[in-house]
Order: sequence, then structure tokens, then C-alpha cells
Amino acid sequence: MTIEAFVFDAYGTLYDVHSVSQLTEEEFPGRGDLITQIWRLKQLEYTWLRSQMQVYRDFWEVSEESLVYTLKAIGLSTDKVVVNRILDKYLHLDPYPDCLSALDALKGYPLAILSNGNQEILDKLVKNTGLDTRLQSVISVDKVKTFKPHPTAYELVEQTLGIKPENVMFVSSNSFDATAAKNFGFQVAWIERVTPEALAAEVASQEVVGPSTMFKLLRMQLENFGMEPDHRLTSLSDLASLIK
Amino acid sequence: MTIEAFVFDAYGTLYDVHSVSQLTEEEFPGRGDLITQIWRLKQLEYTWLRSQMQVYRDFWEVSEESLVYTLKAIGLSTDKVVVNRILDKYLHLDPYPDCLSALDALKGYPLAILSNGNQEILDKLVKNTGLDTRLQSVISVDKVKTFKPHPTAYELVEQTLGIKPENVMFVSSNSFDATAAKNFGFQVAWIERVTPEALAAEVASQEVVGPSTMFKLLRMQLENFGMEPDHRLTSLSDLASLIK
Repeated sequence: MTIEAFVFDAYGTLYDVHSVSQLTEEEFPGRGDLITQIWRLKQLEYTWLRSQMQVYRDFWEVSEESLVYTLKAIGLSTDKVVVNRILDKYLHLDPYPDCLSALDALKGYPLAILSNGNQEILDKLVKNTGLDTRLQSVISVDKVKTFKPHPTAYELVEQTLGIKPENVMFVSSNSFDATAAKNFGFQVAWIERVTPEALAAEVASQEVVGPSTMFKLLRMQLENFGMEPDHRLTSLSDLASLIK
Repeated sequence: MTIEAFVFDAYGTLYDVHSVSQLTEEEFPGRGDLITQIWRLKQLEYTWLRSQMQVYRDFWEVSEESLVYTLKAIGLSTDKVVVNRILDKYLHLDPYPDCLSALDALKGYPLAILSNGNQEILDKLVKNTGLDTRLQSVISVDKVKTFKPHPTAYELVEQTLGIKPENVMFVSSNSFDATAAKNFGFQVAWIERVTPEALAAEVASQEVVGPSTMFKLLRMQLENFGMEPDHRLTSLSDLASLIK
């Protein structure tokens, strides 16, 4: 099937959401990693729960709600200044090391983001990290007030780019997103950052399975919905092989 | 507000979902607890994701999918006989120690279950554990092919019992469920099995925060949606105090 455009998930795919851990570690020494792992798990939970409850809030608000939940649960201060300082990092997340070169290798194709983030924070993040010159569109689900994996969110791609789902290569490292995108009708490349073998070895090496491994166990393996992505790639750089 | 009926969540509220861990430990020595914690986290995730994707499967199927995911992720065998043996425990989960006496203390009120479980497995579980003689209704969301916290699921209570939401005391220890039920319009008693103080102390006592504590951090604290249950009780036995 022809590829007419590449559409990327943002958080966790182009941007490392755990790059916030340096900051959380500074604010809460010894708990930085625990905070970022639980926060990210709850942040996505909150998008799903709010969609289900039919009480939408945008991604920035959901991120704040889930961060405050996280700090409270661990028994830490939820001082507003500190919360805002951590949240602000979402405007300056680190792109994965292979992000810029991988996008450059796809030059000539329309490239876009489809993200749960609201437009304002996505635009700032993309600009702050130099991706604005490389992307044709930054599409936010906020326009339809529902989060991925609802089909309405994925429909925004055709509405914005005018390209049919079957001609879009959708790229995500979020397993639920890759699976749901396949179910929706996109071609899908899942960026598999942790192979089953590597994860099994990581689990076997630990006496007590810690938060970072729990995150990988919970969110970084292929979901078992009976829908398989077309491609399993270990790095964004491998996308270039799909257009050769 | 008058209470005309008590409606209970089943899994995690009346029944201890982690009572499956003895069996998972027998099948996979050293990994029993890790399996049950991840399985329960993914089981609920899968209900939310499938609802969002609009590809419904019943709770038994979702439970199997999430169990197989869990075993694969940890790097364990997904032999069908073993999977079925573990799944079968969902027909014989242990009621919490305070469950039967707490229900008996509410005698005279209509008592019901509203659960994500499908009718067949709920009916078996309730019968196997002697709750059938105590409950007026066992309501399954399967009738409307969507899971809690979707409002359509909660609407089944009035449709079945003929009692308005504001006159129902909805009881759940699942924080998302208690919060969403409040948002829907029920009176709500949240069974808070782990207080913030106890959890903070548990976290502080661990060098590496393990799976069981991660579960409590992720699912057993009050969700931060700006909706508070009417009552926070530490045990089902405390429900009797609401009718005095």
C-alpha cells in the first residue's frame, strides 16, 4: 500500500516523557523516577477515564490533575509553584536522540503529529525543539474534545491532511495507540523500544521489580487485542527503510 | 438524602481480586504477586481502551486477553491450560473478611451488585460464595456492552431497581468507580482500604517500591477529578453507620 504521509504520536514517540525525571529528582530527591513513572501511567488513565465519564478536560489540565494525584499518593508536597515548574517541562521535553535525523530522512513526505496534547502546548513544544520547520501539521485531539484511542480522534488526520487512512503511515511507540490506529485503518509502525526478550531479562535480574520496569511491563509491550501493527521497529531511524 | 438501596461494585469491593495470587504463585513461583498486580491493572485498562476504541468484548474475554498480555510481558508461558486454571479463580474469588457480615447488617434494604463482569460469571461467583441469598439483583454492564465509568453503565441501576440515583448508596473501593458514580448522581461510599498516611509510610519504608505498592499508588487513592464521594469508610462494616 502506498504511503502518502507519515503521522506521528508525540509523547513517548517523538518526545521522551521521562525526560522530566531530572527535574522531579531535583524537586524530590530519591523520588524523581517514581514520580515520572506513576504520573505518566495516571496521565493516560485520566484521558481514558474522562473520555468514558464524558467529562472532558484538555491535556494540560489532565496532566496537572494526574501530577497532583501522583505527588499526593506518594505523600509529597503539592505546592503550586513546584507543580507548575514540573508541568512546564512538557513545553520542553527532550526529543528522542533519533528523532530529528529520522524526520529528515523522510523529507519529501508530508509529516504531521496527531497528539492528545492541546494545540497551544503542542505548538510551543514543537517550536521549542525545532520540529516546527519539519512538520506540515500539528493536529490536536482537543478540536474534537476526546482522546485517543477514540476513532473520532484518528479521523482528524484525514480531515486535516486530506489523505485516506490506508495511505497514512501512523507511527507510535505507545502500544495502545499503535494497536488502536491499526484497528482504525491506518498503516502502522510501532516503535518497540523494549523487546520482549530485553524486558524478560530485566525482570529476571531484579529481586524486587521497580517502578521503571513496571512501566515497561504495563505500557511498552504489544497490547493483546488481536490487532497487529504492520511494522515493529526498534528505532525511529528504521522508518526510512519503509520508503526504499 | 434517603437511602433506598445499596448497590455494590464486585471486584475489589466485595471480592478480593488479589486472592488469585496464591494460585499464580503456585503456577509461577516467585512471580505470583507481580502477575496479579499487573493483570488487575491491565484488566481495567483493557475495559477502558476497548470502550474507547468501540470494540467491545465481555469481561471474561478482557480478563483472558489481559492475563495473556501479563504473562507474555513478564516472559512466562501462556499455556492455555494454565491460563484457564487462573481465570477460573474469578468464579471463586474470596469475599473480603467483612463482606458477609456487612451485607447482613444492611438487612431490610434492597442490596445489589453493579459490575463490569458478564452475567454468567457474576452469577456463578455470587452463588459459589453464598452471596446469592443476600442480593436482590446482580446487574452486569454486559447488557449495554460498555464498561464503567460510562454513564450508560450506571443507568442500569435505575432501570433494574426502579430507584433514582440520588436515593442509591453506591459502594465501591475502586477509586475511579466511586468518583465516576458520584459524578453520575449516586450517593457514594468509597471503601478506602489504604489511607494516604499508611501508603506514604509504606512507600517511605521501601528502598525499591515494589509491585503491590505500585498498585496501591496507582489505583487505591482518591482520584483527582474534583468529585468527592460522600463517605470515606475504611471497611464495609462501617456501612451500617450510614443507616443508624
